[in-house]
Amino acid sequence: MTRATDTTFSVERARAPMLDEILGHAFPVLDHGHIRVVDYMGNDESIVQMARVSYGEGTTTRMNDRTLIRYLMRHRHTSPFEGCEIKLHVKLPIFVARQWIRSRMANVNEVSARYSILASEFHLPDPEHLAQQSQSNKQGREGGYDASEALSIISEMDGVYRKAAAVYEDLLDGDGTNLARETAREVLPLSTYTEWYWKIDLHNLLHFLQLRADPHAQLEIRKYAEVIKSILAAWVPLTAEAANDYRFGAVTFSRMEIAALRRILAAGNMVGEVVGFGENMSDRELTEFRQKLGG
Amino acid sequence: MTRATDTTFSVERARAPMLDEILGHAFPVLDHGHIRVVDYMGNDESIVQMARVSYGEGTTTRMNDRTLIRYLMRHRHTSPFEGCEIKLHVKLPIFVARQWIRSRMANVNEVSARYSILASEFHLPDPEHLAQQSQSNKQGREGGYDASEALSIISEMDGVYRKAAAVYEDLLDGDGTNLARETAREVLPLSTYTEWYWKIDLHNLLHFLQLRADPHAQLEIRKYAEVIKSILAAWVPLTAEAANDYRFGAVTFSRMEIAALRRILAAGNMVGEVVGFGENMSDRELTEFRQKLGG
Amino acid sequence: MTRATDTTFSVERARAPMLDEILGHAFPVLDHGHIRVVDYMGNDESIVQMARVSYGEGTTTRMNDRTLIRYLMRHRHTSPFEGCEIKLHVKLPIFVARQWIRSRMANVNEVSARYSILASEFHLPDPEHLAQQSQSNKQGREGGYDASEALSIISEMDGVYRKAAAVYEDLLDGDGTNLARETAREVLPLSTYTEWYWKIDLHNLLHFLQLRADPHAQLEIRKYAEVIKSILAAWVPLTAEAANDYRFGAVTFSRMEIAALRRILAAGNMVGEVVGFGENMSDRELTEFRQKLGG
Amino acid sequence: MTRATDTTFSVERARAPMLDEILGHAFPVLDHGHIRVVDYMGNDESIVQMARVSYGEGTTTRMNDRTLIRYLMRHRHTSPFEGCEIKLHVKLPIFVARQWIRSRMANVNEVSARYSILASEFHLPDPEHLAQQSQSNKQGREGGYDASEALSIISEMDGVYRKAAAVYEDLLDGDGTNLARETAREVLPLSTYTEWYWKIDLHNLLHFLQLRADPHAQLEIRKYAEVIKSILAAWVPLTAEAANDYRFGAVTFSRMEIAALRRILAAGNMVGEVVGFGENMSDRELTEFRQKLGG
Repeated sequence: MTRATDTTFSVERARAPMLDEILGHAFPVLDHGHIRVVDYMGNDESIVQMARVSYGEGTTTRMNDRTLIRYLMRHRHTSPFEGCEIKLHVKLPIFVARQWIRSRMANVNEVSARYSILASEFHLPDPEHLAQQSQSNKQGREGGYDASEALSIISEMDGVYRKAAAVYEDLLDGDGTNLARETAREVLPLSTYTEWYWKIDLHNLLHFLQLRADPHAQLEIRKYAEVIKSILAAWVPLTAEAANDYRFGAVTFSRMEIAALRRILAAGNMVGEVVGFGENMSDRELTEFRQKLGG
Repeated sequence: MTRATDTTFSVERARAPMLDEILGHAFPVLDHGHIRVVDYMGNDESIVQMARVSYGEGTTTRMNDRTLIRYLMRHRHTSPFEGCEIKLHVKLPIFVARQWIRSRMANVNEVSARYSILASEFHLPDPEHLAQQSQSNKQGREGGYDASEALSIISEMDGVYRKAAAVYEDLLDGDGTNLARETAREVLPLSTYTEWYWKIDLHNLLHFLQLRADPHAQLEIRKYAEVIKSILAAWVPLTAEAANDYRFGAVTFSRMEIAALRRILAAGNMVGEVVGFGENMSDRELTEFRQKLGG
Repeated sequence: MTRATDTTFSVERARAPMLDEILGHAFPVLDHGHIRVVDYMGNDESIVQMARVSYGEGTTTRMNDRTLIRYLMRHRHTSPFEGCEIKLHVKLPIFVARQWIRSRMANVNEVSARYSILASEFHLPDPEHLAQQSQSNKQGREGGYDASEALSIISEMDGVYRKAAAVYEDLLDGDGTNLARETAREVLPLSTYTEWYWKIDLHNLLHFLQLRADPHAQLEIRKYAEVIKSILAAWVPLTAEAANDYRFGAVTFSRMEIAALRRILAAGNMVGEVVGFGENMSDRELTEFRQKLGG
Repeated sequence: MTRATDTTFSVERARAPMLDEILGHAFPVLDHGHIRVVDYMGNDESIVQMARVSYGEGTTTRMNDRTLIRYLMRHRHTSPFEGCEIKLHVKLPIFVARQWIRSRMANVNEVSARYSILASEFHLPDPEHLAQQSQSNKQGREGGYDASEALSIISEMDGVYRKAAAVYEDLLDGDGTNLARETAREVLPLSTYTEWYWKIDLHNLLHFLQLRADPHAQLEIRKYAEVIKSILAAWVPLTAEAANDYRFGAVTFSRMEIAALRRILAAGNMVGEVVGFGENMSDRELTEFRQKLGG
């Protein structure tokens, strides 16, 4: 009979060997940015360990680690993932930082432009990523520019940055002006690079990635999200795989869409046969699949 | 051209007339519990107002309120919903309170059994809801008992409660024992009723309802969630309708399931025709629907 | 004997009459900024109501509302204050917004420069607030400039803003460039005004004010904090008074400082007499005061 | 001149050697409870590392680690402490768990009595800790009982637990009743032991300890807080020392108390001499001390 378990506890910290290999290494992002893994806590096994205290043991068929992690991810049992943490050092333009910080469930320590003088480094877009304001999508871009148009845009932007940098330096240094840093930095553009430590738990990291690696996210923050996705794969490979299958690659249908899908399959007399189309799915998943479609 | 709007601001608070009518009224739940609306902030219109500051105006076709709320819900733009709050007074058994409190994004003020003597009120299950431990679902119940079996179970439970209540009273009062309340309450069962104020924003309330009105939630907390759902409909009717369509009634398919669905429809040569099966969907939704299915 | 109370519940929402009078009104801050109260939930009485469910009734001497609120504030019973919410509409420079957003326990809806074109409004410091970088305090300013120096600094800053504004407009409009808004905004300086809705509970608002109305906070955000302080006084006057006495005006002494204080008073044979120096303090507070000093 | 630093990053995780030695070890608390350190992230040095990104370098006198940590603690710069995490496995009575869970800024995975059968282990108070309800302090205890009275109280409590345990077992097993676990557990008392994983960052842990190691906290949760305090000292010794000096041992004086203190010292002509009474305080602290007292 199922009883609360008397788990054996390790006297060693959980390690993620693939992540250990890249600890401290700066992965470049955009023109001057980077992401570094500074530290972490937990791995795939520690997710399993936490899940087992909640859901007990004692079923006749104990799930293996991969199956359990996939079960947790599929059924949105989020708290075992909250037991893992990662700390990154990120260098990024301020306009990206302002989007990033919308994830409130993280801890941040940013360089302060009240204390420190920011290096005059500014983001200039890659010419081939320059694009017109989308007509159909109010928050997007579409199209592109020919080489000379792109050059002209970049040059205009760079002109603002050069002037801002010159005035910033001048206000701080020039002829003994020595203006307070907190005032001088007002002239810096949103493309100025800043840096921070950013710490987040694995559950909230997956949520961040879902929002920021999405095609609707701005290109520049997506570049950071993509690097973090490869860090994720090195840290918790089973969780990363499950997130790809059940979160990042998942699609949600509305109540009306589900009803339509069921009508479609009924019209084609296909409800009973849907499981025949499943690949790489466990028996349990195939059953769930048929149930979702009214079978 | 689209510019940040100069919204006109009301000099009156946003009101929800249907909610005003039930303010302070106790809706009974379970044998001794209840839910009361104590106060609230915001309504459907204030969600729209907050969304418009973020997403601007100036599209040629300005969405009406209902369409905008449905758009926000469908695309998980959650922050406008965070701008509304509701405060409830709830009386509930402690074992339900322990599940409820898992929603950390809420504010709680609970009666303290260190300061106050709890009334000796205990939850006794409705006999027709008594059921055996499910064999297939480790957290569920299934089947049921005949009337005399149910009576015997209820009677056993009641026996524990009577003894606990008698000892609790005795430790507090009996012959001048006057035991500290914080110690005496240790004997009370998990079925003891407690009460609290509970305040939560609308976004997190929807998340709470998705978890707690779900068939996997324990029957007793579901009873509370159902009452809150009807409060929701009185408070923000457009949001409640949208939540039913895009969250509570929605189904998520995994990456493998989506691939299977596309194969199914391709096999039946039905991809091009799926929109013909949609009902009560806008043109925009029908387009999104076809895209999800690979059309 | 003390029992959990059967509070009588109002069928009306809690109102704050002085706040109702200024609802929707824009209080100017800095050169182009403002703060508006959009909505609120709760008042001093609702704090008392929430506190009474936790701490019960039934003491022989029931505290009046003011005494209870002061007791809660003094002893850091924070949850009753969490039961009140306020929603503000704020227009502020981006460098202030970046400090403000550090308070994560709030909900924010900001105008998006991906969707909307920002008005070309920039913060220019008041000449008399311009000051040199402090030598002693790495994050402060000290001193000042004479009129012509100040004018020259303002003029340099304004030069950057004019150039940034011209390029921003040009990238968006000029000769049909029509650059995506999300890219064009990279050239805007940190002094650009943005606007947002900001919602926070009263407990976290007090914490925000403690940090941001403090002399260590940057002058510009302090201007906003001061306006919010006067809004606080209109909303919850008893709470505002208590916060002034027990939080904003309070001073914390370290373990070593307390030991020193006790030695000082012992050396002067004054421990027994300290209560004689208290003014505007209740008997209970005088007792606590003497105890803190080792009496 | 001060510029944002180019910190050198380690390719090793931060370690806390004294904590490593006790990893996985169960420290007993109360009659059947315990606390185990399962994992952690960060140490004193990583707090320093995070602080230095925010506050920059480049002062002529760079603070050493201890001085910087003490400075951060004294001035409530909390975010560097948020960069450290600890994960504990705790076994505790439910009535303690219900107080503990009030700290919402933590992650919890508790054994579920819907899935698992709880071991019939109940907290029985230590006879010498039994005490009467305090007359002066509504939430406290005072006095005590003689041995035979204490025995009689313990025996009454134990009687409830035996009956509850017998009925719990009977409902689950007896004669094939096989009642659903989620229903059967309703009869268990608040003294029943549960267990959970609890993960929290160092800043929030200090806040938890301030509340729960306080004399106003209930004795039983205080026992847990005391064990965690010794874990803290093994993990981050410099932070633990600073927390003792500036948080746990600190005392806050109200606006009126500060005014009274200044009057007291002025009356004794002692303002100028207060620094002479300081011991173990740095020059900077002595200056701050005198300023607090109006000197």
